[in-house]
Amino acid sequence: MLSTVTILYHPLRPRAREEAAWLGDVLARKHIDVTLGDGWDENILPDVCCDRDLIIALGGDGTIIRVARAAAPFGVPVLGVNLGRVGFLAELTPDTLHQQSDEIALGKFWIERRIMLDVEYHGSGALHRGTALNEVAVARGAAPRAIHVRTVLDEDPFMTFTADGVLVATATGSTAYSLAAGGPILYPESEDFMLTPVAPHLHIGRSVIVPGETVVTLCLATDRPAVLSIDGGEEMALQPEDIVTVRKSALRASLARLGPRKYFYTALADRLK
Amino acid sequence: MLSTVTILYHPLRPRAREEAAWLGDVLARKHIDVTLGDGWDENILPDVCCDRDLIIALGGDGTIIRVARAAAPFGVPVLGVNLGRVGFLAELTPDTLHQQSDEIALGKFWIERRIMLDVEYHGSGALHRGTALNEVAVARGAAPRAIHVRTVLDEDPFMTFTADGVLVATATGSTAYSLAAGGPILYPESEDFMLTPVAPHLHIGRSVIVPGETVVTLCLATDRPAVLSIDGGEEMALQPEDIVTVRKSALRASLARLGPRKYFYTALADRLK
Amino acid sequence: MLSTVTILYHPLRPRAREEAAWLGDVLARKHIDVTLGDGWDENILPDVCCDRDLIIALGGDGTIIRVARAAAPFGVPVLGVNLGRVGFLAELTPDTLHQQSDEIALGKFWIERRIMLDVEYHGSGALHRGTALNEVAVARGAAPRAIHVRTVLDEDPFMTFTADGVLVATATGSTAYSLAAGGPILYPESEDFMLTPVAPHLHIGRSVIVPGETVVTLCLATDRPAVLSIDGGEEMALQPEDIVTVRKSALRASLARLGPRKYFYTALADRLK
Amino acid sequence: MLSTVTILYHPLRPRAREEAAWLGDVLARKHIDVTLGDGWDENILPDVCCDRDLIIALGGDGTIIRVARAAAPFGVPVLGVNLGRVGFLAELTPDTLHQQSDEIALGKFWIERRIMLDVEYHGSGALHRGTALNEVAVARGAAPRAIHVRTVLDEDPFMTFTADGVLVATATGSTAYSLAAGGPILYPESEDFMLTPVAPHLHIGRSVIVPGETVVTLCLATDRPAVLSIDGGEEMALQPEDIVTVRKSALRASLARLGPRKYFYTALADRLK
Repeated sequence: MLSTVTILYHPLRPRAREEAAWLGDVLARKHIDVTLGDGWDENILPDVCCDRDLIIALGGDGTIIRVARAAAPFGVPVLGVNLGRVGFLAELTPDTLHQQSDEIALGKFWIERRIMLDVEYHGSGALHRGTALNEVAVARGAAPRAIHVRTVLDEDPFMTFTADGVLVATATGSTAYSLAAGGPILYPESEDFMLTPVAPHLHIGRSVIVPGETVVTLCLATDRPAVLSIDGGEEMALQPEDIVTVRKSALRASLARLGPRKYFYTALADRLK
Repeated sequence: MLSTVTILYHPLRPRAREEAAWLGDVLARKHIDVTLGDGWDENILPDVCCDRDLIIALGGDGTIIRVARAAAPFGVPVLGVNLGRVGFLAELTPDTLHQQSDEIALGKFWIERRIMLDVEYHGSGALHRGTALNEVAVARGAAPRAIHVRTVLDEDPFMTFTADGVLVATATGSTAYSLAAGGPILYPESEDFMLTPVAPHLHIGRSVIVPGETVVTLCLATDRPAVLSIDGGEEMALQPEDIVTVRKSALRASLARLGPRKYFYTALADRLK
Repeated sequence: MLSTVTILYHPLRPRAREEAAWLGDVLARKHIDVTLGDGWDENILPDVCCDRDLIIALGGDGTIIRVARAAAPFGVPVLGVNLGRVGFLAELTPDTLHQQSDEIALGKFWIERRIMLDVEYHGSGALHRGTALNEVAVARGAAPRAIHVRTVLDEDPFMTFTADGVLVATATGSTAYSLAAGGPILYPESEDFMLTPVAPHLHIGRSVIVPGETVVTLCLATDRPAVLSIDGGEEMALQPEDIVTVRKSALRASLARLGPRKYFYTALADRLK
Repeated sequence: MLSTVTILYHPLRPRAREEAAWLGDVLARKHIDVTLGDGWDENILPDVCCDRDLIIALGGDGTIIRVARAAAPFGVPVLGVNLGRVGFLAELTPDTLHQQSDEIALGKFWIERRIMLDVEYHGSGALHRGTALNEVAVARGAAPRAIHVRTVLDEDPFMTFTADGVLVATATGSTAYSLAAGGPILYPESEDFMLTPVAPHLHIGRSVIVPGETVVTLCLATDRPAVLSIDGGEEMALQPEDIVTVRKSALRASLARLGPRKYFYTALADRLK
């Protein structure tokens, strides 16, 4: 039986809050110490994610990603509940949550560890840092015109892409933006990551999978507006010759899984069909 | 022998202005009435493009596109000179311009007509109109997150795309942004046009070629920032449920061609290799 | 009311023969002159396809294609009934056939005309001719190794493809093999056709749409085993330097359609999702 | 200084034999024990690949692949010399071979280890085994029509592909057939491998990268002619319901490399541009 659980919900979806309250009651009746909170409130996340046996995130993929990143430093597993449909991150929908609340309370889950990417960017005299679970994007701004992005792998120059953007994507991100851009699927626990161009001009636009130890440097080689974005959010405007450095994080996102170990390929086959 | 020629150059590229001046001298010595001007000055374009035998545009593809659109209402052919390398729009580089100035003066060219697209968009209480030679894009704003675009063909609902954007592209545009997004090549004088999604999620992202008579309506079905862009410029912010209507223009862009009629496939084979 | 109808069925599918018999009875009771036959028997096809008001083909897409090609010289429309699911060629399934037999008897259909391709191939001292509704393929033989195919458009050399094959595909074929190979969708009544490489090596593998008047010549530039195939059947082994010529046929396939004129885009949206 | 070297050449390319003889002389004059042989003669390969310090393979990629597979059980590194141009497998061309023969003699190379795949196939009452350096293909036979291939990952059913074929490709194969089929690039020393469909119908055709420990089973779920092929050769006809099992080999191919460790990305950038 679990001792302490935090339940975090998407603040703008009433259904998320309702399910969180329902689940909190169920778990409390089993004498589990339950904390409820707003999954988008960056101020509370460190406190409510620390020293727990499990964190349950209710919302869409965006909520699960935020919570998984916040929980990573504490090594606490996150169980995702998607109000829409089960995806690659969410393990449950409200329906299956109701059916499996006992297993959850008993801690009958296994833990899947997924790599994340650390990002560093010096801009406007300041150093910005971030961590991505899906992908880091160096991409065009609002004008739909290609930008040039020079890439360096460790210390060796690689390609200069002319494209809408270049993604540095993890296995987790391989089923997100990188997939839309034409990238392959990487199995969830892969320690490698990849570069995927978005709408590349004049060259064969394939993803390149690099060893997890690689340090990828991206340099904006154009004066057109461009942005740095982490997991599809947190856009920062880039200036010409700005440099973004991406490497594998020492942290892992831990996802609690109730189903079989091969769940991923089943979900994938469904999605690709 | 031609009687009247306008030479338009990219205002920020000294080389364009120099070549324009050189060519103006050459043609004037042959007693051709020559007008020189800034190809990006929208105010003068209607005047200097009207009642000419030929307009010569010196710059990049952007300059040639602007001039071709401005010349279209007057049916005057445009000869593109690209300062970099010959592309699909530009017929000459400065080198070949020097070699072929006599043929140009003698009017030894044939004319290729290319369709354009008329765009209508009601936004902020005003009606915006534009004409595209390459493509009309309804695309994400600065945040690299997919938008939803509902499409209607004539009066029948077609697909709702979840993508970075949807392009409505002409044959001319088939070698530009649409190509980068995975689209096919349409032969230059095709009267048809196509829809091409950019980085589509969860569906097979193929271009769909529709008859030239089709009226395409695009509707922004999301509250994420999105833009309407014509030929990669002129971005306008779109609001949720905004509607953009695209149809084939009554006007054609006329390009002056000095080489063989099948030049296009030769250039294409070079580019795809 | 129709006067004469031929019903052709897939000879190896009992369901096709049963539905054919059922429909024959229904139409005969309405005093329509009905002929039933085996849709794969090339010997009878010219006789039973000539001088009819309508031909109904029951089977899979293969059966409908054979019948449509056989009926084309006589200009008789073909109504396709697919025993599985409605596709792009089949208008009905057995269920909807039962519901709409009265409309069929009354001739309440419109006719969609689709281009076909004439193929000529000189091999082993003989001239082979054929007609394709979907596509002509020059492709690798049994060994999965790329072949070289030199292409000529009218009299001008175009690309030499290194690929598993090169398809010359019609609008009808744009939803078949060409789609699997990455090609775009062409609206059904397009008079143009396209080249689509299959698994091309070392070049950007896009389809190229050419005007309907184009004569495409394909030449096998390799000594590896290769085949010529028409509509996925009728393979003939090709020898090195063998030449295959493809041009638009003077004949059109006529498909009887009971539904709305824009049925195609609805079916397409379903398929791409 | 090396002690024993085997030089193997493509038997049908005179240039290969000439360069082999030249190099043999150079190395013999340095008192290295040199054996020359036909790189396609399967009978001699085990003998001449065993107990050597280095094997040098002169020919095309096909020759290098054969030699690398033959040398793998003995752990002897293979230096590839391509008579055409440097590829991803070949380290040298004849020109650079002449320049670097001293370094070779001195053993100034590093060794890159690449995984291979073991294949098992029960057919016609016999068990066939093979080892692939690039890829295992289960693919259509001579008729260009899609086949159905059911896949199983370890013991869990994955997708049934409808396609021209399904490739199980290594990192080495990621720059070969799998690339032509749309697959990503895997860095050379990756221990993972991938499934890549060729011309898939009706589903999103992405490569799926699986952990190196995965056992992939492919089952022919169609009665159309199909073949099993290893590294683009050794085709065997498959029967319906035939089963092919692929797993990572215990052996590694060892490639001798004279250039920088990051040579691969430089070569790749060249190739994709």
